[in-house]
Amino acid sequence: MLMFVTGAAGFIGSHLVDRLLAMGHQVIGADNMVRGTAENLNEANKNPAFRFYEVDLANSEDVARVLHPVFEKEAQVDTVWHLAANSDIAAGVADPGIDLRDTFLTTFQTLALARKFDMQSFAFASTSAVYGETPEKLVETLGPLLPISAYGAMKLASEAIISAAVESFLKGAWIFRFPNVVGSRGTHGVIRDLIDKLLKEPGELEVLGNGEQKKPYVHVHDLVKTMLFIWENAKEKRALYNIGPEDDGAQVSFIAQSIVDVSKTGAKLRYTGGDRGWVGDVPRFSYSIDKLTALGWRPADGSEGAVRRAIVELAAERGLV
Amino acid sequence: MLMFVTGAAGFIGSHLVDRLLAMGHQVIGADNMVRGTAENLNEANKNPAFRFYEVDLANSEDVARVLHPVFEKEAQVDTVWHLAANSDIAAGVADPGIDLRDTFLTTFQTLALARKFDMQSFAFASTSAVYGETPEKLVETLGPLLPISAYGAMKLASEAIISAAVESFLKGAWIFRFPNVVGSRGTHGVIRDLIDKLLKEPGELEVLGNGEQKKPYVHVHDLVKTMLFIWENAKEKRALYNIGPEDDGAQVSFIAQSIVDVSKTGAKLRYTGGDRGWVGDVPRFSYSIDKLTALGWRPADGSEGAVRRAIVELAAERGLV
Ligand SMILES: NC(=O)c1ccc[n+]([C@@H]2O[C@H](COP(=O)([O-])OP(=O)(O)OC[C@H]3O[C@@H](n4cnc5c(N)ncnc54)[C@H](O)[C@@H]3O)[C@@H](O)[C@H]2O)c1
Ligand SMILES: NC(=O)c1ccc[n+]([C@@H]2O[C@H](COP(=O)([O-])OP(=O)(O)OC[C@H]3O[C@@H](n4cnc5c(N)ncnc54)[C@H](O)[C@@H]3O)[C@@H](O)[C@H]2O)c1
Repeated sequence: MLMFVTGAAGFIGSHLVDRLLAMGHQVIGADNMVRGTAENLNEANKNPAFRFYEVDLANSEDVARVLHPVFEKEAQVDTVWHLAANSDIAAGVADPGIDLRDTFLTTFQTLALARKFDMQSFAFASTSAVYGETPEKLVETLGPLLPISAYGAMKLASEAIISAAVESFLKGAWIFRFPNVVGSRGTHGVIRDLIDKLLKEPGELEVLGNGEQKKPYVHVHDLVKTMLFIWENAKEKRALYNIGPEDDGAQVSFIAQSIVDVSKTGAKLRYTGGDRGWVGDVPRFSYSIDKLTALGWRPADGSEGAVRRAIVELAAERGLV
Repeated sequence: MLMFVTGAAGFIGSHLVDRLLAMGHQVIGADNMVRGTAENLNEANKNPAFRFYEVDLANSEDVARVLHPVFEKEAQVDTVWHLAANSDIAAGVADPGIDLRDTFLTTFQTLALARKFDMQSFAFASTSAVYGETPEKLVETLGPLLPISAYGAMKLASEAIISAAVESFLKGAWIFRFPNVVGSRGTHGVIRDLIDKLLKEPGELEVLGNGEQKKPYVHVHDLVKTMLFIWENAKEKRALYNIGPEDDGAQVSFIAQSIVDVSKTGAKLRYTGGDRGWVGDVPRFSYSIDKLTALGWRPADGSEGAVRRAIVELAAERGLV
């Protein structure tokens, strides 16, 4: 089948591309390379079933110039895997225009492209951030959805416009609400940030917040397998699923200490204090994956296991060990 | 207090303006006059506490040109009442760009204006359409929210970005999820459409769908009173409330027959068939207003009463009687 992956050069996108190629699909990837890197596609580029286009997906003129000529000649796309988005949540709090453009308009324009070229279905990387900050367990049937960041808001906006598109032209959609995802090729996130800080200052590791933020983590390999499982098995026209581990998460203090341990630097931890890393950060949440387990899937790792695996991979990749 | 009302020349907006002026507030109104009319503001324009600006609120350059000079000189706005939006739901299904612009970007740009001029709070006209089509009773705690029109999607997007703004700069927000609103000055909607059809062809009245669509209706005077009650009494930082009647709604066949009765034309009803008026129309829903009644408010009319009042008002206004 022909697959179209946006955000293909990014962290999760590049792993998804590798996996789709391994399954024997044809894959067209697109990314504006703002955060994605050419190295992430080293594997994929060896495979003739992969083609890549650099394009700003938020910009309809750029999409028309770069991608219309491509899809005019291509077979029908089976599934659009839409992963392009801003991944700097804090930046979007200061300037909501960033998430309007990269988190929402990328979705809007990718849908317009899907409509024009009659692409069949749409799979979307959403996030726990759509739930906002609430003491309740985050389950798919929870409302109202009151995000606390422009990023979370523009992900919810994307879910909503995809849902409307199912009514008018798509055959179906999958909406995956990811927790925190970790692993090799990480382009951002707490593990990579802490490793990079430690590389600069091996004696002391500054950690944002009080270290008590606790969130569910999933390893990127598990995540991609889970997405594909839902894509193959969920039969609803709008299949919306939380993806996550079965536990309540790993604490930031655990992550920081594990990094110091792996680094063998013996660095001291210094917490900046406060219950969250930045405005718009949801410090703690508890995630329900009952819908996913009912579909027949159990995640391989717990949060701490996923974090440990990712630290080893990223420490090697960044040159910390 | 100083109030800023967007969509001020529209149906609901103009009634809200009149009411805020009657309460003794200063009111600044804005509208691009695409659907709003000068006549709707006839009352307001007699009052020196009212000022009006024609501006495209979806366009940041237009907002800067027309409204920045205004708010640079004004006192601090207490509450922004954001009612500007596309109100042709069917048009937005054919071209989602309409709701992107008029239903969402108006919200985004009005929030940017509120941030720049330190306006305190934000009240928003949302809709039952955010719930999508579901057999469940529409209660505020319901999820997931999977709208079936671009209009519903861009209203949900607006709710979400307002919620994020509360985290970063607003003091608070009210989100009102309206049902169908009817009454004098209606710029659109089933009652006005049917009256206008009957004016053109008095012998026969064509009705979209099979007439069995059944929705909750509220009269615009009741609606405005309810909004103001919630605004004064709800204490949550993000006060989100369904507004509606206590019943399950009035049927389209009831509305059509009542119009024919009032018109004394004796016109025959002709149904186009199908369970809904157009793609993106939610044919039936049942609305919970338990949260509103718990706050201490009961709507004055039921759906059929609201519809009857509105028919009499609109039939006179449009020249049918
Ligand atoms: N990593 C996580 O923990 C996490 C959690 C929840 C959701 N997600 C979502 O998963 C998806 C992938 O995230 P990731 O962690 O791989 O982030 P990433 O930043 O590595 O990948 C996103 C990619 O999108 C590209 N992109 C951004 N704006 C673009 C534009 N206008 N046009 C074209 N490409 C553009 C970037 O260059 C980047 O390569 C994103 O949608 C993200 O929001 C990630
Ligand atoms: N009437 C209903 O049954 C109903 C139901 C649910 C929600 N609502 C919401 O209530 C609000 C008011 O609706 P209404 O029924 O009075 O509709 P309306 O069309 O009469 O009023 C909306 C006003 O917004 C103006 N507008 C549209 N785009 C604009 C732009 N880009 N810049 C500036 N002004 C713009 C229009 O000219 C119009 O005067 C809307 O937000 C609507 O979505 C209405």
